[in-house]
Amino acid sequence: MTEKKNIAIMGAGLVGSLLSLYLAKRGHKVDLYERRPDLRKTLIDGGRSINLALSDRGWRALRGIGVEEAVRQVAIPMHGRMMHDEQGNLTFQPYGKEGQSIYSVSRSGLNAALMNVSEPNPNITYHFSRQATDVYLPTNEVQLRNLETGSMETVQPDLLFGADGAFSVVRGAMQKTERFNYEQSFLEYGYKELSIPATAEGGWAIEKNALHIWPRGKFMMIALPNIDGSFTCTLFFPYEGEQSFAAIKNEGDLLAFFQEVFPDALPLMPTLAQDYFTNPIGTLVTVKCFPWSYGGKALLIGDACHAVVPFYGQGMNAGFEDITVLDQMLDTFDGNWEALFKAFERRRKPDADAIADLAVMNFIEMRDKVADPRFLLRKKIEARISAQYPDVWLPLYSMVTFTDLPYSYALGTGQMQDEIMQKVMKHIQRIEDYDKPEVQQLLERQLIQKGKLKKYSAETKV
Amino acid sequence: MTEKKNIAIMGAGLVGSLLSLYLAKRGHKVDLYERRPDLRKTLIDGGRSINLALSDRGWRALRGIGVEEAVRQVAIPMHGRMMHDEQGNLTFQPYGKEGQSIYSVSRSGLNAALMNVSEPNPNITYHFSRQATDVYLPTNEVQLRNLETGSMETVQPDLLFGADGAFSVVRGAMQKTERFNYEQSFLEYGYKELSIPATAEGGWAIEKNALHIWPRGKFMMIALPNIDGSFTCTLFFPYEGEQSFAAIKNEGDLLAFFQEVFPDALPLMPTLAQDYFTNPIGTLVTVKCFPWSYGGKALLIGDACHAVVPFYGQGMNAGFEDITVLDQMLDTFDGNWEALFKAFERRRKPDADAIADLAVMNFIEMRDKVADPRFLLRKKIEARISAQYPDVWLPLYSMVTFTDLPYSYALGTGQMQDEIMQKVMKHIQRIEDYDKPEVQQLLERQLIQKGKLKKYSAETKV
Repeated sequence: MTEKKNIAIMGAGLVGSLLSLYLAKRGHKVDLYERRPDLRKTLIDGGRSINLALSDRGWRALRGIGVEEAVRQVAIPMHGRMMHDEQGNLTFQPYGKEGQSIYSVSRSGLNAALMNVSEPNPNITYHFSRQATDVYLPTNEVQLRNLETGSMETVQPDLLFGADGAFSVVRGAMQKTERFNYEQSFLEYGYKELSIPATAEGGWAIEKNALHIWPRGKFMMIALPNIDGSFTCTLFFPYEGEQSFAAIKNEGDLLAFFQEVFPDALPLMPTLAQDYFTNPIGTLVTVKCFPWSYGGKALLIGDACHAVVPFYGQGMNAGFEDITVLDQMLDTFDGNWEALFKAFERRRKPDADAIADLAVMNFIEMRDKVADPRFLLRKKIEARISAQYPDVWLPLYSMVTFTDLPYSYALGTGQMQDEIMQKVMKHIQRIEDYDKPEVQQLLERQLIQKGKLKKYSAETKV
Repeated sequence: MTEKKNIAIMGAGLVGSLLSLYLAKRGHKVDLYERRPDLRKTLIDGGRSINLALSDRGWRALRGIGVEEAVRQVAIPMHGRMMHDEQGNLTFQPYGKEGQSIYSVSRSGLNAALMNVSEPNPNITYHFSRQATDVYLPTNEVQLRNLETGSMETVQPDLLFGADGAFSVVRGAMQKTERFNYEQSFLEYGYKELSIPATAEGGWAIEKNALHIWPRGKFMMIALPNIDGSFTCTLFFPYEGEQSFAAIKNEGDLLAFFQEVFPDALPLMPTLAQDYFTNPIGTLVTVKCFPWSYGGKALLIGDACHAVVPFYGQGMNAGFEDITVLDQMLDTFDGNWEALFKAFERRRKPDADAIADLAVMNFIEMRDKVADPRFLLRKKIEARISAQYPDVWLPLYSMVTFTDLPYSYALGTGQMQDEIMQKVMKHIQRIEDYDKPEVQQLLERQLIQKGKLKKYSAETKV
């Protein structure tokens, strides 16, 4: 039986809160230190993206600790993308097969739910308004400032988990150690949170069970449904240029711009100008680093070691999957934390890199390609292939969203699929062309004879 | 006429010292602040790679300010690579055409020469033993600690240049600004400096005019000649593994290892054990970042914004080329420093990225491929192609080392050449096969019909 440890988790966000449940279940004593006040007792800070798309990897981690049902109450299924063109015409594109959906959840609602489940656990203690000001890794000492009283305290846990997000203080300490590989890269885009309120009747002003996209080539807006009937909209927009944050200087500019590019959304957004000029511009950063651990004492997890841009809806899901994988490995590496941490970081790093790259790639798809008829035709052809060869062809989006195949496997397989699709699409002008003998022969040759994409099976699972 | 500025350069290394000459020539007042004491008055710190390969880009920058001849006195031409195999057999591979060489120079000797040339200039002032402890970019204030007296001072130049190397303090300040892209990545290899002393007669124990390489697949040693008859050797070695720094624990391990893998070098290295166990292990880091400037006030240059691993011998040359390019652009952007800095960073960034990637790629070539007969045959075939098609085919190494074609152009062209070489080499077992009609036809098709590699000309120059 493993020795029980005193564990400190820096950050009581989604990953920290869920991780505390998994660790406490094994009998460890867990203290969570969170810079912000208790979000259940204070007003939610607006203007920072508070809607998330929960998909299979996230559900799996919630199910693993028995909190799936509690979350399902506040999650809205989105069956596909609803594209809005510049004339307000709609096109719907399902995310997967019948019955497959991603789920819109509120970040703060989910976080509060996880806190409510974990806080009564006698092994779990939350400490709010505690800012980590310094981490000294050789002794695992963390200096904390109590932001309410101003007093300082030092804690020295047996194990330290850095679940403190993209701008992690624990990672900051690791960055000062020898030979720490680190990368932060920002898109030339920022985001601004906007809103479509509920209708007068308390319903949803546009289709409830969809993720709405207004793709416009060089920029886009999306909207995710909330349980109160409103939608949280996010405008992804260049910082500089002809159509950019820099170009919109006043309410006149803003309304003219929305009238031109989002004419069907504008009448639904009565608080547009207030939202736009009040809410901050969020940055879009990818963080990669290695290693993720320091000795057998400290481990980064979630955004702290692999922050990704939001365009695949996988940031939280990847962080939750970290916990699933760590929990599995805890069975194997019982009590040997150093070996566990090293094995965990080696195992997860390729998948974290893959989802980071996929997320950047999906931005281009969302803002640009989904409005392209040729791209939509390709998606339909791919659905035909997948229906005909269900054992060897699962679309990339489905692999990422509806399976627990490793992200790195999904990325690699997606690249092979892309090569095949490029060849196939040369012969295709209309959906019916799929049945042409030369297309069928080409596909068979590619899939069967070349032996590509032969198997995705249990052995490739996360 | 440009307004004369008070300019502070952080770092009086090679790039800082040379930059001071270029700026002072335009009438600006330049202060250099260097953490270390004056290297002309103190013992050289041993154990950190002090030999550099100066090539065309570096010479061009030295020539541009009239210090070429002074440096030529202390530079030893190296006409090619001398490979030492495990039986001590030698193979020589020229770097370029007849008369083309790279030059071994001592870092400290070159630095002292640049200081000696610049210090008498009334517009240039060196301040040694000054450690920058803080840089506040909005006001361009730099706090400096005088390491001799312990006293602090603050300077506030009109313009601040960060020539303070791979671990730049100026860059550190930029890292704290919004949306700063940054990457540091370490090889799993370190380096250790060793030595082959001059012979009793004061001559060179091995061929003077060559860069010596002992390539051993997973590791290698190199040696560069010094003017006193000695060679500075550098062992590039994994940190961990069967053959690694970790595996050599004592003098017995060391001597047995050298006897096995470097048998011809061992007798020439009487201070081997002392050097090995005294000198530190150096890290091998690549640094990439963007932007390189802050407003029109501060600019990074050289290693501070693009530190590269040493395997292409281009780190100093790239830093010197920064100065050449900046000086050219100063003519255009007379007095508009903000526009200059922005244009400079946009212009240089792709080339800095390219040489960083080329340097990592060349490590594999040096430690592994140069010992491969197939690789050597390929080099000879490439020389034949280059001789036959001199206008369209300049080998990658030559583009990087013996021209001022942009590094990014060299990298891209090198990749196209690589594709062609892979096709050509399928038909080649011996050098004579080059004259076969099918090889000649293949080449002609690739080069002429496909129009690849059509021109490298003035328009592509740095």
